[in-house]
Amino acid sequence: MARTLEEIVARFGGDLRGDGHLAITGLAALDVATPLQLSFLANPKYRGQLATTHAGAVILAAEMADDCPVAAIVTPQPYLYFARVSQWLVETPGPAPGVHPSAVVESPVPASASIGPLVWIGADVVLGENVVINAQCRIGAGACIGDASYLYPGVTIYHACRIGRRAIIHSGAVIGADGFGFAHEKTGEWVKIAQTGRVLIGDDVEIGANTTIDRGALADTVIENGVKLDNQIQIGHNVHVGAHTAMAGCVGVAGSTKIGAGCTVGGAGMILGHLTLADGVNISSGTFVPKSITKPGNYTGYVPFMAHEEWLKNFSRLRHLDAMADKIRDLEKRLAELEKNK
Amino acid sequence: MARTLEEIVARFGGDLRGDGHLAITGLAALDVATPLQLSFLANPKYRGQLATTHAGAVILAAEMADDCPVAAIVTPQPYLYFARVSQWLVETPGPAPGVHPSAVVESPVPASASIGPLVWIGADVVLGENVVINAQCRIGAGACIGDASYLYPGVTIYHACRIGRRAIIHSGAVIGADGFGFAHEKTGEWVKIAQTGRVLIGDDVEIGANTTIDRGALADTVIENGVKLDNQIQIGHNVHVGAHTAMAGCVGVAGSTKIGAGCTVGGAGMILGHLTLADGVNISSGTFVPKSITKPGNYTGYVPFMAHEEWLKNFSRLRHLDAMADKIRDLEKRLAELEKNK
Amino acid sequence: MARTLEEIVARFGGDLRGDGHLAITGLAALDVATPLQLSFLANPKYRGQLATTHAGAVILAAEMADDCPVAAIVTPQPYLYFARVSQWLVETPGPAPGVHPSAVVESPVPASASIGPLVWIGADVVLGENVVINAQCRIGAGACIGDASYLYPGVTIYHACRIGRRAIIHSGAVIGADGFGFAHEKTGEWVKIAQTGRVLIGDDVEIGANTTIDRGALADTVIENGVKLDNQIQIGHNVHVGAHTAMAGCVGVAGSTKIGAGCTVGGAGMILGHLTLADGVNISSGTFVPKSITKPGNYTGYVPFMAHEEWLKNFSRLRHLDAMADKIRDLEKRLAELEKNK
Repeated sequence: MARTLEEIVARFGGDLRGDGHLAITGLAALDVATPLQLSFLANPKYRGQLATTHAGAVILAAEMADDCPVAAIVTPQPYLYFARVSQWLVETPGPAPGVHPSAVVESPVPASASIGPLVWIGADVVLGENVVINAQCRIGAGACIGDASYLYPGVTIYHACRIGRRAIIHSGAVIGADGFGFAHEKTGEWVKIAQTGRVLIGDDVEIGANTTIDRGALADTVIENGVKLDNQIQIGHNVHVGAHTAMAGCVGVAGSTKIGAGCTVGGAGMILGHLTLADGVNISSGTFVPKSITKPGNYTGYVPFMAHEEWLKNFSRLRHLDAMADKIRDLEKRLAELEKNK
Repeated sequence: MARTLEEIVARFGGDLRGDGHLAITGLAALDVATPLQLSFLANPKYRGQLATTHAGAVILAAEMADDCPVAAIVTPQPYLYFARVSQWLVETPGPAPGVHPSAVVESPVPASASIGPLVWIGADVVLGENVVINAQCRIGAGACIGDASYLYPGVTIYHACRIGRRAIIHSGAVIGADGFGFAHEKTGEWVKIAQTGRVLIGDDVEIGANTTIDRGALADTVIENGVKLDNQIQIGHNVHVGAHTAMAGCVGVAGSTKIGAGCTVGGAGMILGHLTLADGVNISSGTFVPKSITKPGNYTGYVPFMAHEEWLKNFSRLRHLDAMADKIRDLEKRLAELEKNK
Repeated sequence: MARTLEEIVARFGGDLRGDGHLAITGLAALDVATPLQLSFLANPKYRGQLATTHAGAVILAAEMADDCPVAAIVTPQPYLYFARVSQWLVETPGPAPGVHPSAVVESPVPASASIGPLVWIGADVVLGENVVINAQCRIGAGACIGDASYLYPGVTIYHACRIGRRAIIHSGAVIGADGFGFAHEKTGEWVKIAQTGRVLIGDDVEIGANTTIDRGALADTVIENGVKLDNQIQIGHNVHVGAHTAMAGCVGVAGSTKIGAGCTVGGAGMILGHLTLADGVNISSGTFVPKSITKPGNYTGYVPFMAHEEWLKNFSRLRHLDAMADKIRDLEKRLAELEKNK
């Protein structure tokens, strides 16, 4: 889809410098953009790329605008502006509205919705307007999916779960599988506890490929508005994730933990169960969280890597940290004794 | 489904206090249960919720029974009792018996089995009685699935793998993909080793969403009776998991490791290959296991997190632990010298 | 499929000792092989199993050949030889060539290709010769899949992604989902950045079950020839993985990281974004990599586990490492003072 710079500024604002009739057909980074592409400059460390860019136009802040050799859209938050334009310029492919004849659909479907090939939709499912459900998704009985939500191929929604409006859910995501709940027999056998809760997902949530969110045991698992989950994340039963919290790939959150609003969890962060994390908590990548966090801020716990031989020497000491601390205490005592008698 | 307290006690035992004709239609926690719901009290820290509960009845131990303001079922193990009742009260939704016309089925199916929409079942597959295979599962040639096993939508069973009786397998699980086995050319290329073993799964096993269990290289990968695996777990080729072992989400077990019976592995625990873990070993969440464990017990290795600035100060020292140990040894020597000459 | 030893040696070379007419129908380890099976001896620690093996023949090195009581194929690299034979002896099951009538195919398919039941292939897809696409795979519009590639059931390829020749992709893998890219509003909301790049995968790549590889944000995510990825791996947007690099299960690689050729990453290794790893870097299992590595070699950072009580004593000291270092420095100063005055 081609858009002129005038059209872009008319829609998203900003101060246009240069020819407003210039047509843009795509997006690219400063160093590789061609004259039909729009680029952006958000990180000052790439400022040097401006001089040689072949982009048709660049989105940037006022203080950089004079360095720009091509057309420019000047705005205080170039990255945010670029994000908005990118969504408008790029069409997400999907089947046309209507129900593909190969789909097995046991519930009414709004005329504006698009149900792709080989999809299964169970009984009593409620779909909003303009919902897109791509090939081979499976939607369990009684599930609800809000207006304009978009499911990529092969998404699973279990029975009775609710997805809000404008959700984007990627392939292989599983919403609503049973939580991991068992009682332990004295004989060692595990007796399953029926997982009777649901997953309730707010509006504007994105869920990555192969991410899993378990249904609640008795109450519900809740994902608030605007939450963004990357791929391969596991959310346990009865977890509550606050609004606009974002988690990177491979994160795990164990059951019944309550994560505040506006939090971030870096890749492979792991959060134990039955904890509470305050609003505005940022967990670094590779960090394990075994206890609650009551104050906003940045928390970290990953360990450095080293050349293997260095690691062998240093990390073997971890087994003797307690002994080291004892030795230091002993040294302090003996030294104080000597100093006294000096 | 409604059940009276009399019916429940007739089936599961326990000592009924109160009106046996009271009908129960669901389950809920003490603090939110309504008069048509059954609750339970297992953890003494929730005892205070008894006084104000609106539950129709509560499952609890004899020593708590006098505090219960509503009907009670008295039993020595309330949580276990609750687990059993929960399974009975809650119906798992599934397609009716019979083969959905959209399924592609290349093997005979027992009349008692239920094959959902858009399922593919390959040749020479053997299905037990009352098996339920939900929408879009794919069952490879020659696989066997035991009586009363229940596969949620979108499960994959590779060729020749065997699932026992009463299995529950959640969406996105993949049973029997190739193990990761390659020989290394001097040129750097990897040459694949055909993975000719199977996955053999016992009875009463539950497998979580998007969990993967690889087929053996030459011999088989074995999961014994009663094993419970949460979501997003990876089990490598030729692993052996003993009976009634349970693993929480995001665990990984590398190839050829033998885990004993009655073990537990906490979330994100990672176990290297070619190891042996004794029966009754409990691995804490977030713990990495690079060597065998010969005695039952609890083993832990996760690291604490800190406020980021604290972490920077403390964890940078990990690179110098060996030097610290050397300094302490040196201090001890010098101090002993001074003490001698005192 | 039965093959005589003569046929095997004619195809793969090596020095045959014993009856070349002996027919082999399968493969097994030395200690369990039967007279119709071929075994191998690569690791000297299993040499003792030679004396009692019931294998029909054994692949081994010259220096072991005299100990072999049965037929032998003598070759300098027995494991590599075994790998090659294993691929030839073992047929991978797949549907016959042709398009299954239940598949929904919106692009032309070569006569040599095999499209299984309930597959969806979108518009403008280009398939090579002898491609096998098993049940319920979904191939987005404009994707390309090279000659002789083999997709197990339930693989997802997003629109416009390119897979090379002879790929093997396991069930549940998702190639080309959106990368995790958002701009942050001052209000806390995240604004999605359209992910307009592709995933480009070279020849001879294997991708494990439930592994995810995200499409690039502006440029492409690139996986070079001969890369082998195990199960449950997450590769972020714009990552570049060099030729013949292998990663074990549960690895994560965050966005825009460039990994060299001939690298290995052990299970659950986690590599942060925007880094560069040189060719020939080996990351140990369980190791977190938050900075670039410029030299080939082995790098490690996992922590030891201990009996839980030992761990409590030792790891609580991690919070006080900085204080310990201060104490040691103080001790050194005071001791030097004493020594001076001695």
